[in-house]
Amino acid sequence: MKDIRMKMEDIGEFGFIRSIENNCILSPARIIKGIGDDCAVVGPYDGRLLLITTDMLVEDIHFILGKIPPEHLGEKAVNVSLSDIAAMGGEALNVFVSLAIPKQIDVDIIHTIYSGIKSVCRANNLNILGGDTSASPDRLIISITVIGEAAEGKVLLRSGANPGDGLYLTGTIGDSAAGLKLIKAEATAPEPIASRLIEAHNRPVHFLDAGRIVGSSGLASSMIDLSDGLLSDLAHICEQSHVGARIFQAALPVSRELIYMAESNRLDPYELAMSGGEDYRLLISVPARNKAKFQEIFDENAPCPVYCIGEITSGQGIELIRADNTREQVRVTGFDHFKR
Amino acid sequence: MKDIRMKMEDIGEFGFIRSIENNCILSPARIIKGIGDDCAVVGPYDGRLLLITTDMLVEDIHFILGKIPPEHLGEKAVNVSLSDIAAMGGEALNVFVSLAIPKQIDVDIIHTIYSGIKSVCRANNLNILGGDTSASPDRLIISITVIGEAAEGKVLLRSGANPGDGLYLTGTIGDSAAGLKLIKAEATAPEPIASRLIEAHNRPVHFLDAGRIVGSSGLASSMIDLSDGLLSDLAHICEQSHVGARIFQAALPVSRELIYMAESNRLDPYELAMSGGEDYRLLISVPARNKAKFQEIFDENAPCPVYCIGEITSGQGIELIRADNTREQVRVTGFDHFKR
Repeated sequence: MKDIRMKMEDIGEFGFIRSIENNCILSPARIIKGIGDDCAVVGPYDGRLLLITTDMLVEDIHFILGKIPPEHLGEKAVNVSLSDIAAMGGEALNVFVSLAIPKQIDVDIIHTIYSGIKSVCRANNLNILGGDTSASPDRLIISITVIGEAAEGKVLLRSGANPGDGLYLTGTIGDSAAGLKLIKAEATAPEPIASRLIEAHNRPVHFLDAGRIVGSSGLASSMIDLSDGLLSDLAHICEQSHVGARIFQAALPVSRELIYMAESNRLDPYELAMSGGEDYRLLISVPARNKAKFQEIFDENAPCPVYCIGEITSGQGIELIRADNTREQVRVTGFDHFKR
Repeated sequence: MKDIRMKMEDIGEFGFIRSIENNCILSPARIIKGIGDDCAVVGPYDGRLLLITTDMLVEDIHFILGKIPPEHLGEKAVNVSLSDIAAMGGEALNVFVSLAIPKQIDVDIIHTIYSGIKSVCRANNLNILGGDTSASPDRLIISITVIGEAAEGKVLLRSGANPGDGLYLTGTIGDSAAGLKLIKAEATAPEPIASRLIEAHNRPVHFLDAGRIVGSSGLASSMIDLSDGLLSDLAHICEQSHVGARIFQAALPVSRELIYMAESNRLDPYELAMSGGEDYRLLISVPARNKAKFQEIFDENAPCPVYCIGEITSGQGIELIRADNTREQVRVTGFDHFKR
């Protein structure tokens, strides 16, 4: 008899989330947003909204202990959650750190990971208010919860985009995926290119300042951070806003390091840029009437540039305009933990 | 040369927590309590305090998949966090569920665990607002964060106990430890005793109603839930309140099932009751002047009995008064994940 039991790899991460997200809100008072955005949003309390996000990093899935310095692992564990707060336009406040630790691991490694966690907290004035510490049979697990705040009415969800909105990114994309290929020895690159790309993967930065500027400007219609890849995360905006999107390949911000590494390894840099994960840039939609003002704010005050890469459409799915002006309907192939 | 690198099992869970808990509060505004209680306490917001607790359950450390029905595992994962909210006198509101799932596991098992999670949420009117889903190389990890609320001034910390206070428990103790011994086949018992003790371990209940009654009564001075064991958790109250405690063995609430199982396996039922973990009862200290009123409230309205088991002293450590009136200074030997 054939085994018809379904495995997680049959339904995938997003199939699983869809299967459990019904009937999750039983007390709707003060719930602005539950499952399905970068953070949950609860409130208002004294005119403020609470933002809550949680991320789990599993050894040999999200990181390989020998391939990332422990301090950088600690920094990254917090920064990826701060990126979720940034994507709502919020301010991060309090951090909870849960660790499941192999008994035989050197305490020094755990303390160094914790140093990385604390250095990010110090740099961003965050409190560590708790967590959980337990043993693990073999692999290290890091689960981080961050609670932040945003002013009422200033939170940016994934669901606000409208046809005609411009699409903006807060930085280059693809470097992290290129760095991962180097770490996994699936590609090579000379120094200092290799170090820069690996650094992009191991030490992602958050865009809390940029996110807050976007949120408080009132000029944007939606925002998300790029964790699974541009196409995959843009697809979340499209799905939740009931819109399509158009991307201009020639406008995608890619680094010289990525181009060099991709060409010398016969890889497509734009494939890495569009489908590679863990860039943690903000992807922002801005109504056409606000685009000039939005660009001006970033040109004048912001801590990072923004790049206009396309627009929201009334169509279905994502259309890619290649450099030679050919058009292609994109099949979204972002990262899914379970898919074969 | 001798290897002088320290392992986690050399410093233990609480040694590790002590080593990282300094310099964790960088923005003290609105922080009532950080690391070191059942929940973090933040606020006030509109006169309410936020309570946040997080627990991680690791396969083969906290549970063995074949030894607990998946639905019960889901229930337990939430109930242990609800117990932390109960121990502050709070109301639970919102739940975040993170899962790291082995790719090869049957989806049915995960859905059944989720059914258990949802059934507890339904019974307690809790929202599931988010979480994280990722793959795991082999073991299942469940990380639950619960956010609750309490009225300003009604939160009970571990640090409020004073000499002369009575010590109360909201239920029997030791059954869970006895059940664990049966599950691990380190002891035997006939039916229905075996099932009842195993049920105590696999299906702990929370005392949210009792905790709220205690909190709103204003009659208690401190509260904690029993996760690591009576002595270990009482030691937390003693340490944080700078007091000692005295326990009367004859007053400890132990079930007939525990007595039977312990005697027939040549175990000490009071050892299981005092040092066994995962009972999830509330341990409450009540100033002498409030004891009569406190007992009266529980006799009249409360959803559970309370048992007076001892008192807070001005001494050091915990003193045990045995049934034969002999006295003994107790060495605290609660559960530590890492200690050999």
